[in-house]
Amino acid sequence: MEKIRFACDYGEGALPEILERLVQTNLEQTPGYSEDAYSEQARAKIRELCGQKDAEVQFLVGGTQTNMTVIASILRPYQGVISASTGHINVHETGAIEATGHKVLAVPGHAGKLSAEQVEQVCRAHFADVDHEHIVQPGMVYLSFPTEYGTLYSAEELRAISRVCREYELPLFIDGARLGYGLMSEKNDVTLKELAELCDVFYIGGTKCGALFGEAVVITNPALAKDFRYMIKQRGGMLAKGRLLGLQFDTLFTDDLYFQAAKRANQLALKLRRAFEKKGYPMLMDSWTNQQFPVLPEEEMERLAERFVFSFWERVDERHSAVRFCTSWATTEEQVDELIEAL
Amino acid sequence: MEKIRFACDYGEGALPEILERLVQTNLEQTPGYSEDAYSEQARAKIRELCGQKDAEVQFLVGGTQTNMTVIASILRPYQGVISASTGHINVHETGAIEATGHKVLAVPGHAGKLSAEQVEQVCRAHFADVDHEHIVQPGMVYLSFPTEYGTLYSAEELRAISRVCREYELPLFIDGARLGYGLMSEKNDVTLKELAELCDVFYIGGTKCGALFGEAVVITNPALAKDFRYMIKQRGGMLAKGRLLGLQFDTLFTDDLYFQAAKRANQLALKLRRAFEKKGYPMLMDSWTNQQFPVLPEEEMERLAERFVFSFWERVDERHSAVRFCTSWATTEEQVDELIEAL
Amino acid sequence: MEKIRFACDYGEGALPEILERLVQTNLEQTPGYSEDAYSEQARAKIRELCGQKDAEVQFLVGGTQTNMTVIASILRPYQGVISASTGHINVHETGAIEATGHKVLAVPGHAGKLSAEQVEQVCRAHFADVDHEHIVQPGMVYLSFPTEYGTLYSAEELRAISRVCREYELPLFIDGARLGYGLMSEKNDVTLKELAELCDVFYIGGTKCGALFGEAVVITNPALAKDFRYMIKQRGGMLAKGRLLGLQFDTLFTDDLYFQAAKRANQLALKLRRAFEKKGYPMLMDSWTNQQFPVLPEEEMERLAERFVFSFWERVDERHSAVRFCTSWATTEEQVDELIEAL
Amino acid sequence: MEKIRFACDYGEGALPEILERLVQTNLEQTPGYSEDAYSEQARAKIRELCGQKDAEVQFLVGGTQTNMTVIASILRPYQGVISASTGHINVHETGAIEATGHKVLAVPGHAGKLSAEQVEQVCRAHFADVDHEHIVQPGMVYLSFPTEYGTLYSAEELRAISRVCREYELPLFIDGARLGYGLMSEKNDVTLKELAELCDVFYIGGTKCGALFGEAVVITNPALAKDFRYMIKQRGGMLAKGRLLGLQFDTLFTDDLYFQAAKRANQLALKLRRAFEKKGYPMLMDSWTNQQFPVLPEEEMERLAERFVFSFWERVDERHSAVRFCTSWATTEEQVDELIEAL
Repeated sequence: MEKIRFACDYGEGALPEILERLVQTNLEQTPGYSEDAYSEQARAKIRELCGQKDAEVQFLVGGTQTNMTVIASILRPYQGVISASTGHINVHETGAIEATGHKVLAVPGHAGKLSAEQVEQVCRAHFADVDHEHIVQPGMVYLSFPTEYGTLYSAEELRAISRVCREYELPLFIDGARLGYGLMSEKNDVTLKELAELCDVFYIGGTKCGALFGEAVVITNPALAKDFRYMIKQRGGMLAKGRLLGLQFDTLFTDDLYFQAAKRANQLALKLRRAFEKKGYPMLMDSWTNQQFPVLPEEEMERLAERFVFSFWERVDERHSAVRFCTSWATTEEQVDELIEAL
Repeated sequence: MEKIRFACDYGEGALPEILERLVQTNLEQTPGYSEDAYSEQARAKIRELCGQKDAEVQFLVGGTQTNMTVIASILRPYQGVISASTGHINVHETGAIEATGHKVLAVPGHAGKLSAEQVEQVCRAHFADVDHEHIVQPGMVYLSFPTEYGTLYSAEELRAISRVCREYELPLFIDGARLGYGLMSEKNDVTLKELAELCDVFYIGGTKCGALFGEAVVITNPALAKDFRYMIKQRGGMLAKGRLLGLQFDTLFTDDLYFQAAKRANQLALKLRRAFEKKGYPMLMDSWTNQQFPVLPEEEMERLAERFVFSFWERVDERHSAVRFCTSWATTEEQVDELIEAL
Repeated sequence: MEKIRFACDYGEGALPEILERLVQTNLEQTPGYSEDAYSEQARAKIRELCGQKDAEVQFLVGGTQTNMTVIASILRPYQGVISASTGHINVHETGAIEATGHKVLAVPGHAGKLSAEQVEQVCRAHFADVDHEHIVQPGMVYLSFPTEYGTLYSAEELRAISRVCREYELPLFIDGARLGYGLMSEKNDVTLKELAELCDVFYIGGTKCGALFGEAVVITNPALAKDFRYMIKQRGGMLAKGRLLGLQFDTLFTDDLYFQAAKRANQLALKLRRAFEKKGYPMLMDSWTNQQFPVLPEEEMERLAERFVFSFWERVDERHSAVRFCTSWATTEEQVDELIEAL
Repeated sequence: MEKIRFACDYGEGALPEILERLVQTNLEQTPGYSEDAYSEQARAKIRELCGQKDAEVQFLVGGTQTNMTVIASILRPYQGVISASTGHINVHETGAIEATGHKVLAVPGHAGKLSAEQVEQVCRAHFADVDHEHIVQPGMVYLSFPTEYGTLYSAEELRAISRVCREYELPLFIDGARLGYGLMSEKNDVTLKELAELCDVFYIGGTKCGALFGEAVVITNPALAKDFRYMIKQRGGMLAKGRLLGLQFDTLFTDDLYFQAAKRANQLALKLRRAFEKKGYPMLMDSWTNQQFPVLPEEEMERLAERFVFSFWERVDERHSAVRFCTSWATTEEQVDELIEAL
């Protein structure tokens, strides 16, 4: 019997509506490189949703690719990107950012989050140093919404970070690999429109939110949009059959599909959370999105691992570890119930 | 009425068998990053077909990504890659190779092809120069099979290049973005097994040969395989839902699908070629694969452009230009006949 | 008996005035990184000589370092630098430019020189191409004055190139590794002031023109000056004891030393040229600067090589080769006469 | 009246013996790029001193340049370099290492030093992680001897680090920008021969230890020596007049000059240290080399700053800061006494 996988949010394929449209349009002949009508239509929908009628919208295949392309496009050679030390770019992309020549300026973070004070402190310290020419200059800020720990920035926190960024002329880039789960969390108070306004560039994650693959980069600061497609091509992110990307995002933003799928995944995740808490297991993080991090005794981990797949996160003490359970658009109520029953 | 597109070989989606299997397997839960069973199965089939039971086989999404990842993985920082000046890496990838720090050592080429003599000449000249430390060292050889002009290397030509490469310890990398069309050309005398043996690494193109997307890298020289997956991840080419790649290649190499689709596209391309020749139009290149380059008078170009899409290639004289017509797995006999009729 | 070396213009140390001042000031305590008073004084003299009172002037140690730092500072990641194919950056810097991520867009050149038409043609072709996003974008122009072949651009030629650069918004960078020899050539009609005005950044070569080492970068386009010192530090070109550089340039631009030394070297080179011509040996290049390229029969090469060191340049036919003889500030009339006598 | 500078160890020129020889040899004609007889002679002396008769010895101009060239030469693209977080490469080189594509894997360190346990822990954690392909692979270890805080590794500590490095096949690179001060410290128990044996590559600092400029890289692991000169040229570190470097190191290693100058500077630094301690000022670091870090009250700092230049290091509490005083070959007993008197 196959184990049930809660290991990640990219274990299955795509929302069935996406596959249907891929099948329907398979023989249509379109221009390549996302210059087709489906991509244009998806762009229009995204601009509308974001309330950014002039935003540059481009589609890439995956998250690491998107992060490195956006960051390399923005920074001057001697600049680095400020990130929480737990940020995906700092720990889980095999040095993709450094491979483009830039240092990740990691700051400790709290529950996966940067604070406005930390950003300000890095900038102030840099420019106050008499030797600042010998030190990597902060050139932009990267944060994930939600974070790699499932946590969320409040609107107030984002506004404060945005203010500091604008004061120091640092573009703010929001990694939205799991944006849907963040926006649809019951604890979230940031709208997509406000998020788009507060940052300079962000992306709407498809891979982890119901698409086969794909990330939609939205550049709201026009100064950063010029020639961005050259960057995509150079970094290997320009998909020949760009229609595949356009069509997927067009579908995701039809009938609220993207948001409803995320909402349902969040609900199942919270159901799981409550079950863990009921059993007395503490949560490593106060997450209200699709990733949950219970702290389990070793025996319980082993017992659950016989029927379920989940990720080891970190050792908490000699007899306990935090693990990660993820839900996604594809998770069923039955799967969750089976896990709860097993607890 | 929509124009019929012969502009490229990636204008449609994928062979229907591929979509069918994507639909069938959509809800299966698999590990990510091509560590799933479909990817393993595809690897086994590819190793078998290539006669290389120990080859490292990895899947990436697109051609530029594959070229830059393979080349950056092989070269030392002060080395460059020898390529025909018309090579895709030299002219059509927005400097992706240089962005990884390496010079493309472009040599003139003939009909898109390098010769063994040219490779030898570059190496001999380099090491004979007293100032060779001031010059980029040749570190590997890149060639396309078939070339960007639809032309083919004969087995004898490939053997000669391979011999020079081994003499100078230069890994030989074959870009097989259109490998199917090359192997199935009626003029081809190179088997996949021999090709695999003559080079150190090559890739089997999926994007332009019937897949939705995807390229299968085959590393036959074990010294080049170590840690290659780190490179894929770092350069943004590690697809989260790796099953999508494994499944596609597994399907392509079931029932000879990959090869039969290429063969059919070649036949349609040759049918077109004969029609152009019959009308008295010379061909820029003696191509026996799916790309054909007739030289047309301006009026004829304009007339055809009313109903068909094709690519401008290069101006030949004041009144004539070479253009490119491509066929693919998706091209129908009717489309070709309609074009022939229009001639 | 030691052979007499005409192999290059950096075979000896420095003008004695420079060593004297190094000795005099050896125990002075100064701030590092060219923030000392000597460096400031040298900057002021250079700004005055160039007629550019607001120019940014910075000192680096050597030519390759300067070229790569300036070019990496100017280009966006997807841009390349247009250069004659014989340009130093294209052939003799071990791919230093590519190591910073940028392609050298080499055009054939004539006698080591680019033409305005060639630059325009590259730009026009690029932006006219429907696929220009797939091609490296021309981002700046590099030329050497004098060229690697000792030849010179006329004022009219430079003006034409400058016009095209400004039309296409391409910064123009002039490599002045041998600037003194160029400016002081009897055939030169470009003043330092006009040169400074026509380009956006150039450097005044010290290493090959009388200094122990050092190149003075002059950035006349203020948009390119911002944060340039970060670039110098990052690329390893920030000399700790910056006084050494400032003092040398301060000395070179005292009492016309730089220019008189170059003038004398040119005169000796021309004396050599006339001697070669009198013997009936043709010159590969019509050079009026300190490098001369006679075409010699093999026997004569071998005979001269017994007493003199010079550089092999290129084989001209089966029995003749072009070689290079260089003079410098250190060359004596006696050395030249001895060579002439030996002819 | 000029202030007396204790701000750094590169505020003056060079040991007089060096200038003398530069003057003596100024008109000698030598081949370039450190292929001259003086460079050969310096290499021979260095090999002898290190007890490494086959070591590759090359000369570069400065420290950042040397660090980036050595590190970029050793690492594979997906590898990073382990360093103490206070390591020069991590904090004071404007991201030079990242600009070559590599992450600095910073670990906390203690008093500027790495421990063998920390190195082992990084390696063990990396290879134990199931997702290690998504994480930068540790590829080498960098440490400074003495450290940026003037502290020293004991022979036992170095041996332990070396053992771990060899176990994990990580080349060990020792930054010896201030090597002389380290080796000649009264607390040091590491010989140059043992240091050379324990690491794979290190450099003997000239710039901060009596030369005008220059660092001598010693590669004791033959696997790392191949083609290193290509790297030097590509990264802009190949000095045209290489004699200047060879001659300086030849002089430094004549009559024990290098070591005696360092010893004297250490003695003066320790004299200063004792004076600070006598006044009751604690030292931030227990340094027995030429850098001393007293913790001073603000008023005392201001008072001393009227007559002396020194570096602010870090704020310790609201009313105290640590500052740095450096001595060098050029520091006189009088300067030190004047400072002591002022205390």
